[in-house]
Order: sequence, then C-alpha cells, then structure tokens
Amino acid sequence: MSSTAGQVIRCKAAVAWEAGKPLVIEEVEVAPPQKMEVRVKILFTSLCHTDVYFWEAKGQTPVFPRILGHEAGGIVESVGEGVTELQPGDHVLPVFTGECKECAHCKSEESNMCDLLRINTDRGVMLADGKSRFSINGKPIYHLVGTSTFSEYTVTHVGCLAKINPKAPLDKVCILSCGISTGFGATVNVAKPKKGQTVAIFGLGAVGLAAAEGARVSGASKIIGVDLIPARFEAAKKFGVTDFVNPKDHDKPVQEVIVEMTNGGVDRSVECTGNIQAMISAFECVHDGWGVAVLVGVPNKDDAFKTHPMNFLNERTLKGTFFGNYKPRTDIPKVVEKYMNKEMELDKFITHEISFKDINKAFEMMARGEGIRCIIRMDA
Amino acid sequence: MSSTAGQVIRCKAAVAWEAGKPLVIEEVEVAPPQKMEVRVKILFTSLCHTDVYFWEAKGQTPVFPRILGHEAGGIVESVGEGVTELQPGDHVLPVFTGECKECAHCKSEESNMCDLLRINTDRGVMLADGKSRFSINGKPIYHLVGTSTFSEYTVTHVGCLAKINPKAPLDKVCILSCGISTGFGATVNVAKPKKGQTVAIFGLGAVGLAAAEGARVSGASKIIGVDLIPARFEAAKKFGVTDFVNPKDHDKPVQEVIVEMTNGGVDRSVECTGNIQAMISAFECVHDGWGVAVLVGVPNKDDAFKTHPMNFLNERTLKGTFFGNYKPRTDIPKVVEKYMNKEMELDKFITHEISFKDINKAFEMMARGEGIRCIIRMDA
Repeated sequence: MSSTAGQVIRCKAAVAWEAGKPLVIEEVEVAPPQKMEVRVKILFTSLCHTDVYFWEAKGQTPVFPRILGHEAGGIVESVGEGVTELQPGDHVLPVFTGECKECAHCKSEESNMCDLLRINTDRGVMLADGKSRFSINGKPIYHLVGTSTFSEYTVTHVGCLAKINPKAPLDKVCILSCGISTGFGATVNVAKPKKGQTVAIFGLGAVGLAAAEGARVSGASKIIGVDLIPARFEAAKKFGVTDFVNPKDHDKPVQEVIVEMTNGGVDRSVECTGNIQAMISAFECVHDGWGVAVLVGVPNKDDAFKTHPMNFLNERTLKGTFFGNYKPRTDIPKVVEKYMNKEMELDKFITHEISFKDINKAFEMMARGEGIRCIIRMDA
Repeated sequence: MSSTAGQVIRCKAAVAWEAGKPLVIEEVEVAPPQKMEVRVKILFTSLCHTDVYFWEAKGQTPVFPRILGHEAGGIVESVGEGVTELQPGDHVLPVFTGECKECAHCKSEESNMCDLLRINTDRGVMLADGKSRFSINGKPIYHLVGTSTFSEYTVTHVGCLAKINPKAPLDKVCILSCGISTGFGATVNVAKPKKGQTVAIFGLGAVGLAAAEGARVSGASKIIGVDLIPARFEAAKKFGVTDFVNPKDHDKPVQEVIVEMTNGGVDRSVECTGNIQAMISAFECVHDGWGVAVLVGVPNKDDAFKTHPMNFLNERTLKGTFFGNYKPRTDIPKVVEKYMNKEMELDKFITHEISFKDINKAFEMMARGEGIRCIIRMDA
C-alpha cells in the first residue's frame, strides 16, 4: 500500500486549454481510482499524431480543457475496488483501447475491438461514474481515450493497462503502447508475409516504419516504401525498406508502377496514411492469386473505397486492422518480450528525447515532420 | 493402347451453330490428341449457367459454331505426346481452368489461377497449335474453355483433367468439375467458418447451395439464405439453410436486416450471384472484429465495388475466390474422396437426368429456374 493510496494526488500535468494552443504545465488534482480503475505514475510518454488531431480538433469533437497523451510507460501507484490483476509497483503501458476479457470480441481469438473499452475519442470522462479524475480548483479537466498520459499521474480502467516485464526499459517500450505496435502488428499479425515475399508500405511515418520493421523481421525479400517525401527514404533504410516509390515521380497510378516493378504485384501491402487513394492503390498493387492488402490508416468520414470487383475475384484479399490486431492486456506484454529477446528493434524509432516542461517542442517537431518518436521524460 | 488411338473418331456432339438457337446433335470428327493433350470419352455431363452465357453470347464474344459443356465425367481414350500422368482407362473430370504445375500460381500454395491454363472464354481452339480438334466435313467446330463436354469424345489439355478414384460414380461426381466445387470450396477453403459460427449465403442456385453445404459440413449454427425467389427456400433446407431473407420483403438494405438478425452481423458470408449490390451487402453484413466475406459470383464489366473504408478498418475481411480455390489436378481428386467418405453430399444436387438427345430440355429447365443440376447421359 503506497502512502498516497486513497488520497488525491497533486502533480504536474500538461493541459490543453484550447484547440491548437500550446499546452500549459499546471498543477492538477488526480482523484483516487474508482471501481476497476488504476492510478499510474507516468515515467515516460511520447507524442503520436492522434494527440495532435485531438489537440487541433479539426473535424473532431472539441473536448477542452483536456489532458492529452496515450503512448506511455509507468508504474502502478494504487488500484481501485475489484482490481486483482495489478498491484502497486507493477510496470504498465496504458493503451488507448481496452480489453475487458468478457465481451464477444475479447472472447474471440480474431478480434481486439472490445465492446466495453473500444477507443472512444469523444468521451472525456471515466466509464464508472461519467466523471473526470482530473481537476484544477474543483473544475474538471477531461481525459483523452482513457489514458491522458501527459500527467505525472493518471487514472485508467484496468482493462487499458498492459502489465509488462519490470526489467523492460520504460523509456523504450513506452512507444509500444500505440503507433509502433499498430504498424508492426498490421504486418506480422494481419498481412503475415512469408519469408522471401515482397511487401509495399504506404506512408513512411512511425506507423509505416513499424510496418516495415514487421516485414523486415518476417524476412521479406523486397520492401517498397511509398511516400510523397523523398527525405524519408534514407531513414526508412534502417527499417528494411529496399525500394522507394514517390507517386509524384510517375504519370501513371502508383499501383501500376509497383505491379511493373514486381512482375505482377507485391505479395503483401500495408496502407498507413489514411488517404483514400492510397488505400485503393495499396489494394490494387497486390498480386492476383494470393495478394493481401491491409488497411491501417484512418480515412475521412466521407471517403468511399472503390474498385472493380474482379480485383477481388482474382483472389486478392483486403483486410483492415485496428491496433495491429493486438489485444492490449494479452498481447502487448508479449511484444515487449519480443523487444527484450531482440526479435524486433525499437531504439531506432526514438530520434529525440525532451523534458516534460518542454512538451510543446514535441508538437513543433511533429508539425515540421522531424524525427520519428520523441520521448518525453516526466522526471526532468 | 485403344484401337482408336491416333485415329480420327467420328461421334455425336451437340453443336451450337448460332447464339441462342437450340443445339443440334451432329456427327463430328474428333482429331487425335496433340502434345500434352488427352482425348476423353465423356459418359456424363451437366449444364451450368456458364454454358448458357456463352450460348446466349450476350455481351460475350460470340464464338460459333461451338461445342459447349464443361461439367462432366469421362474415361481417357488416348493420350498425346508428353502425357505421362494419365493413360487410357483412367477416370477423369475435365475442368474449365487448368493446372500446369510449373508457373508461379501453380507453385504457390495459395493460388489456383494457373498462368498457362487459366480460364479463357474467348478462345475456341487448343493451345498447342491454335486449332480446333472438332470438325464437320473439314470445317472447324470451336471449343469452349478447353473442355467441350457436350460430345461423346472431346480433347483437353492434360492440365485440365483431374484423375479421380475409378470407384467414384461418374454420374454423380461429374458435377464436381465446376459449380459445386466452386461453391463448396468458397466456404470450406476461403470463408472457413468455425463450428458454431453463422453464415449468410447470397444466391441459392447450385453454387450458393454448394456454399451452404460447405457451411453445413463445417458445423455452422445458422445459415441464412438470401434470394429473390421464395420457392428456393424449401429446397435450400436440405443444404442446411436455416433462415431465409428475401430483400424484396424489406424496406431497409438486406445487410441491415442480417445485422439485426445476428446481433451485429454474420461471422461469414459468401456471395454467389455476381450482382454488385449483393456483393456490397455480403461484405457489409459481416460482424466487425472477425467477419469474412467471400465473393464468388462474376460481376459485370462496368461494376464498381464501393463501401466506406471504415468497414474494413473495423477488422472485416473481403476476399474473392475462383473455382473455390481448388487446384484442378491436385485438389479435385480429394473432393471426390470427401464424397466417397460421406463427408459431403452430392446426390441432392441432382434433380433431373436426361438423354443426350434431349439436351435442349436441360437448357429449357434452366431458363425456367427448374431444379439444381440435370445430368445428361451420353449413352442414352
């Protein structure tokens, strides 16, 4: 039992008061965890594009003031009623989507889209009582996707915490709680390239590079990176990308370029941009007979996926994935073990490290497209 | 060595002289098999919708005069140069698509779309020399998809013949050479429902009923048949169909009806009509998280498959299949064994039997939507 258990904790948090305005480090009050909740001391967090989307709140429901952040690593401070799986001192990764272990999705071997704890980006409060656990002078500060890791302490549902090996370095494995697992899992769990096969990756941001890393560890013979930014190719080589296609360099659709490069199409493709035209290209560039295309990037509300149905009938497969098809509690601890066993590389994704007080710099770097992942140290 | 080997054989064949006009039983000359070809004595054949399409030649390239027919069973009469796998007396099923065993598709475990012998509906001649093996008074009569089984003797490429158990009754297993394997394989090889799962079948013709049979033998808990013709439901019960949905009975899209019936969607669906709206419904009616939809029916040239990409991202899969993903030479003999071992039922598909001389009656029955499969006996 920690001395703070059951007490309100006062600590620092980066509060987004308004859409698009720099975060402000404030002293907030963090209420004790309620039924099935856990309070976690965050040690490291990182910035993901999704945080930026909800900070900009363009086309998203604006929920302010809010504490953003959902890629992180921390240590359990105290647990609420009914929590038996975790105890103070456990090392955990908070995840933006949960695993209740009770619903049809959690019971299915094939799904990770938990009915109870599936990502909900509009909700700024906890499920138990519809209230926030964060406040300043009694005024609520809202949560983001049940994680809000831009705070020295946060409260999450127990179903949104992966309990990991305490020997794993939290300043590295924290990036497994969102983007890197999403991309890596899209390849190894869904596209499943066989050794020697060819893979195309659309979009060479963090998620796309993680998808490439998945192709590299699967033994792909050729990994074609597709991106509009030529500068990304050099960095992508470290992630196994062997060939680069910039759609801007070609008059014909990029799927035709790839089909020509690969004598009929790639064996697998993974789409990580969310651009509808890239989705169509990612599907149409796979080989007939056995090609599999996997959609990862999130489209706009009004997009329509459109293709000739013969592209399917010629034995192509199109699948979508969410969080790399990983179940947060069941599978993420195993991904951490993969890193510990050197079966996947993580350090190369981490290009920057900053102090919590400088958190707005991470937003600025992402706006400039600089680096891949920036670790934010809460203790500095 | 049969006494006719190397000789021209004169025999009866049903010739389609013109689009849509009744076939005429004629005496034709069947040339000996050339390199990698086999001459087969056809004992039983049946009529499939595809024969009717090429007979009507609406929107298809008209190739006349032509000998139709591609579902059949027969016995090898003689073999051409280079054929070592078959010998006179072997029991075979001719198949409209082939397996050369040499190309990338044949070498892939996942594909059956042979580069050399993939179905070609416009070609009326043999690959070896670009000529027909059929003639009347020296005038060529064209082939259909390399099989032309509406003839007492036919010539096919060795790659288009499945060598089967000689104990298998050819008047039953002949229907495995096209539609029934297509539907059954779509379910068991591609949709792969697990025991207890729910399956929707779009279209309750022969292919759809075979898809239902695949769901039945897989242990599906609920099989929903979707068709515009209510009379088909009673017959479909024998094939395991438990529920019937007629899109005409509902104001809302059929996918919404199915989602409501199944608490979120079916686990698997198989589309056997080729109607583009049915394809979209078949995809959108599967459950998020794990649903798999399989397209079998062949669309029109100008169709576009259109859906919101979130339907994929919510972990649904869409696949197409061709001939149930069976490799003709490797797999069809095993399907025959499934029938012999009573692991699948075939007799219930056979609703009529007629003499070869009455072959036009089979076309008339199909036009009226009567029955499922009509066996045509060549010896009567």
